Amino acid sequence: MPKQFPTPDAFREAVAALPCANAALQLKARERQQVLTKPPGSLGRLEDIAVHLAGWHEEGIPRAERIKVVVFAGNHGVTAQGVSPYPAAVTAQMVANFKSGGAAINAITGSVGLELEVMALQLDNPTADITAAPAMSDVETLEALNAGARAASGDSDILIFGEMGIGNTTIAAALCAGALGGAGADWVGPGTGHDVQGVARKAAAVDQALARTRNDGLTDAFKLLRHLGGRETAAIAGAVVAARHERIPVVLDGYVVTASLAPLMKLNAAILEHCIAGHVSAEPAHQKLLQMMQLSPLLDLGMRLGEGTGAALAAAIVRAAVATHTQMATFDAAAVENRTNAG
Amino acid sequence: MPKQFPTPDAFREAVAALPCANAALQLKARERQQVLTKPPGSLGRLEDIAVHLAGWHEEGIPRAERIKVVVFAGNHGVTAQGVSPYPAAVTAQMVANFKSGGAAINAITGSVGLELEVMALQLDNPTADITAAPAMSDVETLEALNAGARAASGDSDILIFGEMGIGNTTIAAALCAGALGGAGADWVGPGTGHDVQGVARKAAAVDQALARTRNDGLTDAFKLLRHLGGRETAAIAGAVVAARHERIPVVLDGYVVTASLAPLMKLNAAILEHCIAGHVSAEPAHQKLLQMMQLSPLLDLGMRLGEGTGAALAAAIVRAAVATHTQMATFDAAAVENRTNAG
Repeated sequence: MPKQFPTPDAFREAVAALPCANAALQLKARERQQVLTKPPGSLGRLEDIAVHLAGWHEEGIPRAERIKVVVFAGNHGVTAQGVSPYPAAVTAQMVANFKSGGAAINAITGSVGLELEVMALQLDNPTADITAAPAMSDVETLEALNAGARAASGDSDILIFGEMGIGNTTIAAALCAGALGGAGADWVGPGTGHDVQGVARKAAAVDQALARTRNDGLTDAFKLLRHLGGRETAAIAGAVVAARHERIPVVLDGYVVTASLAPLMKLNAAILEHCIAGHVSAEPAHQKLLQMMQLSPLLDLGMRLGEGTGAALAAAIVRAAVATHTQMATFDAAAVENRTNAG
Repeated sequence: MPKQFPTPDAFREAVAALPCANAALQLKARERQQVLTKPPGSLGRLEDIAVHLAGWHEEGIPRAERIKVVVFAGNHGVTAQGVSPYPAAVTAQMVANFKSGGAAINAITGSVGLELEVMALQLDNPTADITAAPAMSDVETLEALNAGARAASGDSDILIFGEMGIGNTTIAAALCAGALGGAGADWVGPGTGHDVQGVARKAAAVDQALARTRNDGLTDAFKLLRHLGGRETAAIAGAVVAARHERIPVVLDGYVVTASLAPLMKLNAAILEHCIAGHVSAEPAHQKLLQMMQLSPLLDLGMRLGEGTGAALAAAIVRAAVATHTQMATFDAAAVENRTNAG
């Protein structure tokens, strides 16, 4: 059973006291990379990925066979502010699409060979409009965090979290601004495809929510998730924290997923050390957010869909990195001569 | 039976008269992307890949199930100039490693699910040292071109060509400088891991070869491949031309593979229209070369190994792009509401 958070303080404690990577095993993995049949360093980031995972997986042997994508879905009262060109009903319709196999995440997980799970979080019960009130109560926030944490159970080698929620790039912007500073305009973007007026409406909604919460001096991670977030963003935060305690590495998806973790950084800057940034989204704020988190994305393909799609693609790279690390022959074993002294 | 080149002129004609992409089918594929259950454009380059392939594959339905990697290996007389920190014997040793499954390309093709074929080209018979003489005779060049062309046979949906040849980043630099201009220093780099002196030796070797051939006014594609190339680089050129005539798209690997095609650009600037740049190598000249070819790489992972490894990784992205295009539901079919008028 993965970590659960019975109280806000239990959540705070779980973020404050994190297990760490095994640096000795990472060093050993780096040494192995030097004797595999290739010039040292020539596999670039594939080498870094294998070494990174070696610090989390048992006996320092990276694994990437069982990779599960969990898509969390939630609805948002802030859609009343006209922050999305799509009607809120689309969230539930897309969940049905996930379940019948017709969405992008279905095609990509099928192609790459990943498990897919969908967790709809009270779609009939949207969170409150953050421009006017806290998104959730303490109890609702804990429910969402724990739903996320449960998704970190099982015997996955690597986890990926995705999201679906009409209006949630506005929620993501609010979480970033609340946790990291700046105004709405610094963190909003076209999302699913807004024009200039639409983006301005998003910025105004975020500013209104910030004004309300900043007056309360809101800086605590739990409170930020509760006041400015949504059910799916809290679930992602809970899932990433629980995965850390299970020592399961996570490949991060796009803007909404990464923004869900911004409040956690305030509590513990090391919270993302078990995470790999799968891709950088076309949503402009994502790049800035990754830079602030000192994460370097594996892919940059102009994607901006969410659902976990960018991370699911990146999983193919991660799996190949593990394959090279674990399957390649050494110079000695393959009787391949290593470099001579000539520089 | 794929295209063969009985004479240098037959090769030149094959490069001059190329089949083209079906633009009507590409337009139709682009229209399909607009009605799949996602915001238009939100899959970024995945959409472009699917549309690109639709112009080459039958009935405009992109396919990426059967993807074959063919690794060509050759040896180079220019290694006498101290252009590699590895002994020339490593080429044959690595071919044995490919065949016993211990190399990076084995691990990556296994992980991604690609076929792998290895074609060693007269490893006991290195090409002449290009600083002193033409690398190959006309007959030898044709043999290599045709060996490559034969690799474009079969029923692959997509082809990838890789290479192994100690000394061949110097050959690649010579091909680029010969075809596109510039001196040795503009096109050489650390390769498998040279220090400053080693890189200077590479530049000097290229300059010496250029001096010899430029005096001959060497600008013809066939002659460039023959004078400055190697067996594996000629094979790659032959394979890419033959694949074009078979309407089989190609995912390009790194610097050596891309440089092998630079001479062809002189004959026909449209020669790479069936190609997708799989990745950009850490070898500095590769980025410049791709820019000159107006190709935008899918991956940038700091890799510089060759063997087809970067392209093989990119194949996972290409395959996922095809999966989204062919498997996703439309808004109508999935009963998902499309965007409203709100911008």
